[in-house]
Amino acid sequence: MTIENGRGADEGPGTPVAPMRWDGWGDPERAEALPFAVRSLLPLLLGRVRRPVPGPDLAEVRLEPSAFTAEDAGAFAALLGVQHVRTDAESRIRHAGGRSTPDLLRRRSAAQSATDAVLLPANHDEVVACLRLAAERDLAVIPFGGGTSVVGALDPERGTHRAVVSLDLARLTGLLRFDAVSAEAVLAAGTTGPAAERLLAAERMELGHYPQSFRYATIGGFAAARSSGQNSAGHGRFETMVTGIRVATPTGDIELGRSPGSAAGPDLVRLFLGSEGIFGVITEVRVRVHPIPVDRVMESWTFPDFASGMAALRAVAQHGPGPTVIRLSDETETSVSLAQVGRIGKALAKGASAVTVFEGEDVEGRRARTSALLRGAGGTSLGDGGAEEWLRTRFDGPYLRDALLDAGVFCETLETATTWAGLSGLRTAVTEALKAGFTAAGLKSFVMCHISHVYPTGASLYFTVLAPLRPDALDIWAAIKRRGGDAIMAAEGTISHHHAVGRDHAPWLAEEIGDTGMRILAAVKRELDPQGIMNPGAVLGAATPVPAAPGGEA
Amino acid sequence: MTIENGRGADEGPGTPVAPMRWDGWGDPERAEALPFAVRSLLPLLLGRVRRPVPGPDLAEVRLEPSAFTAEDAGAFAALLGVQHVRTDAESRIRHAGGRSTPDLLRRRSAAQSATDAVLLPANHDEVVACLRLAAERDLAVIPFGGGTSVVGALDPERGTHRAVVSLDLARLTGLLRFDAVSAEAVLAAGTTGPAAERLLAAERMELGHYPQSFRYATIGGFAAARSSGQNSAGHGRFETMVTGIRVATPTGDIELGRSPGSAAGPDLVRLFLGSEGIFGVITEVRVRVHPIPVDRVMESWTFPDFASGMAALRAVAQHGPGPTVIRLSDETETSVSLAQVGRIGKALAKGASAVTVFEGEDVEGRRARTSALLRGAGGTSLGDGGAEEWLRTRFDGPYLRDALLDAGVFCETLETATTWAGLSGLRTAVTEALKAGFTAAGLKSFVMCHISHVYPTGASLYFTVLAPLRPDALDIWAAIKRRGGDAIMAAEGTISHHHAVGRDHAPWLAEEIGDTGMRILAAVKRELDPQGIMNPGAVLGAATPVPAAPGGEA
Repeated sequence: MTIENGRGADEGPGTPVAPMRWDGWGDPERAEALPFAVRSLLPLLLGRVRRPVPGPDLAEVRLEPSAFTAEDAGAFAALLGVQHVRTDAESRIRHAGGRSTPDLLRRRSAAQSATDAVLLPANHDEVVACLRLAAERDLAVIPFGGGTSVVGALDPERGTHRAVVSLDLARLTGLLRFDAVSAEAVLAAGTTGPAAERLLAAERMELGHYPQSFRYATIGGFAAARSSGQNSAGHGRFETMVTGIRVATPTGDIELGRSPGSAAGPDLVRLFLGSEGIFGVITEVRVRVHPIPVDRVMESWTFPDFASGMAALRAVAQHGPGPTVIRLSDETETSVSLAQVGRIGKALAKGASAVTVFEGEDVEGRRARTSALLRGAGGTSLGDGGAEEWLRTRFDGPYLRDALLDAGVFCETLETATTWAGLSGLRTAVTEALKAGFTAAGLKSFVMCHISHVYPTGASLYFTVLAPLRPDALDIWAAIKRRGGDAIMAAEGTISHHHAVGRDHAPWLAEEIGDTGMRILAAVKRELDPQGIMNPGAVLGAATPVPAAPGGEA
Repeated sequence: MTIENGRGADEGPGTPVAPMRWDGWGDPERAEALPFAVRSLLPLLLGRVRRPVPGPDLAEVRLEPSAFTAEDAGAFAALLGVQHVRTDAESRIRHAGGRSTPDLLRRRSAAQSATDAVLLPANHDEVVACLRLAAERDLAVIPFGGGTSVVGALDPERGTHRAVVSLDLARLTGLLRFDAVSAEAVLAAGTTGPAAERLLAAERMELGHYPQSFRYATIGGFAAARSSGQNSAGHGRFETMVTGIRVATPTGDIELGRSPGSAAGPDLVRLFLGSEGIFGVITEVRVRVHPIPVDRVMESWTFPDFASGMAALRAVAQHGPGPTVIRLSDETETSVSLAQVGRIGKALAKGASAVTVFEGEDVEGRRARTSALLRGAGGTSLGDGGAEEWLRTRFDGPYLRDALLDAGVFCETLETATTWAGLSGLRTAVTEALKAGFTAAGLKSFVMCHISHVYPTGASLYFTVLAPLRPDALDIWAAIKRRGGDAIMAAEGTISHHHAVGRDHAPWLAEEIGDTGMRILAAVKRELDPQGIMNPGAVLGAATPVPAAPGGEA
């Protein structure tokens, strides 16, 4: 059942997921050279690219000595057991950041920064104890789930503290409670996407949250980052699936979610969704689940251009119930078939291509209504081939990025969202800002975009950029990313639709939520984390409240 | 169009809504004596009831002198114009509370408490100026929309301040912006339900939020109270309709909502939805709207009992897309047909009755799927008669309450929600607690319940109680309400599904969201409202932070 359900053969029940490659994406066994078709295409897009100097082996990486003392180690070992307090180089490096392209480029340096220690608590109570001890010992704490952040949320930043530890939730796994009548499940925060689906499949249920990071990311990470999955048109953003939450903060626990609907004051669950560890550690998430879909149909479409395709998607989003998945590539992305990793370079297509997938109830009825809307807006059906290809390779984009980096091609993504009325202007503004940034750096570039999440009132835009990889790529990209973020703000987009804020997007948050919004977040942080040990610098960036005196009460 | 759209003949475009009766519900012209059928039924349910002594005329009510000084009046008149600063007795009494049964019983006393003054700002900037001036002059501020709170959110509580003013948003009305492409509208907070629908109807759109308070309640009130309307099965709770918000706080403005989906930190819009004026004043609300539905079908159902009906509603909620409206009365409510005001007492029906209404897209398809599920769960269709009757009288319950009170019958409602698995236990626990409370007071009672809002993981329960009205009804009900609230907490329900917290539910909030949750709300309040002038005592109750010194900074 689960294999048929779009997770690919390697996520069948019982299949363990191998530890992620330390300096790239995913299963080391699956790392591949760039497909021939892509290699042939690159000179056309970017001119000549040069293979970079390979990065070091894990054993060759030079680290600063850990600031985690023997006393620290002893204190945490007494709490967690000595094997769950790690200061070896490999553990430190593996928790040194996430999987943005800058993260991967930093992994290619001889000397690297890393977390000072890794803690592996077994359950909620051990998390609570870790936070208490970290506060006592003046240690910053970076909650760590699947390690898939692409916005710098996992950077081992010490802030004003003596050292920094990564709190890895890998041991907090499992289906803690399952309520078949209410179709609700409580999952431990460290449970990965595939593990959660395996556990639920035993109950004949599905969560149905499939972001590109699905194979490695965790339930707690989905919650902390306000994730959105590829089936969002059908099942909603992750936050709409969450019906309750349990959080350990440095000054007390909170457990929320008595009811799917409530007017008992503001919905504080939503204050923790998107909090990215700055208030505390999400340890359990209660989610609504649904029966594993029996039926699935899919269909690919082509539109004369992005504008007509966008109007078609808008019609579908505003006249639901529609598809489980709906996506539209712009002309640039369509031309290289980047939406389907397996087809890249195989066909230089025209127009704007779209994919629809229908799962669950009344799939044929929903397909018929959606098809009528898409056809009415100028779409032409291409049958199910392209959609199947997309589905088969939907989690493979990051493998391709590794191959591109190895071949000397810089590849990164960024994303935003706004209203339907503003979407076209936002896409143009961001595309032009990114291209202008590469041009200013003297580089050819290729900037593609697709819509991957639709709502009645607007949609998301997901940009992929390619350019020749230079030794100073980190600086070049930092400048271009600034242009992209500024363009998003000027065009009234959100600084992130589903990647979250981390440290990379913090410079724009104040513009998005205003001074009052930043003051609210800082006030909550001061209340829950008066010493400022939780993920310092994340989300709030420079606005992170600095404790009055290290180790003392603010 | 709007008339066909379920709002009743009196809410057609351009029809003004008369000011609400000062001591009861709604249009004074529509106040009626108790229908004969109800009068005949009451002795069977409650034994003999006695007509109470009538309350005073408005002109006869004795008030404490206003603590709002001539200097206060002069300062606010300079800001708003003298006609928008009211200290006359009628204005003070009309803003003395909401429309709970205790509110109405208090209106029947010779001596009453009232707000000290009423301010009528014209726009957002005047609201900001009012808050600044109120803080300077040490005045508590109670934001006031339609005046329909049933949880004490509008009580003129001074807290530690010199006087209390009600900030009436009646002049902040209108469709401020409309975006046809994105299907989004920005409405001024003081716009009433009917006014909003009239304005949107001119754009051929509908908001579709129809709580029982619809005719008088405001857009800002829906937001502040986390309202849920009768069409929630189709259109969701009000909070799911909100895509943006503008709020004036004593220490700064906030405007949120660039995108329908975002991961730019926690969703702070949700912190203001349900904040009931304790952080500031919601002045504008951005909402998603949809085309005015052309098609509507409806169907009434009967089930052997509440349990089978509940299982049927659960199937529908978990296998959507289903109806726009779905409701189920328990056996007690069914027996007196209370779900349809016009039919009460006309038939003593058996089993549990349900109503479904389908509006918008694919109504026949949705009806067919829903009917199959209801029939499969033991339901029998009764055709569309009962549903039409429910739709016609859906906003009339509060008129009946006035007539019952006049006839000597105490009538009040309370509501909660929980998961499907817990729903039956919650209903039994609350019903028994309420009945035991009346029995302890030596009174016969009649306690009915219905499900009015469904979700995939749970549903709401709405209780209506009838009992003989005694002179000490306020004390009797206070004790029974405590039993009801305690029973809700013990059975894992939420203290309110859509009535909100106000002052009446504040005693239970700490149990629902915990000490950490209360600390978060208090921290946000201290940050935004350091002098604690905003609606003191609401939501947080005894946990409301007390400013360090009146008039000074906390």
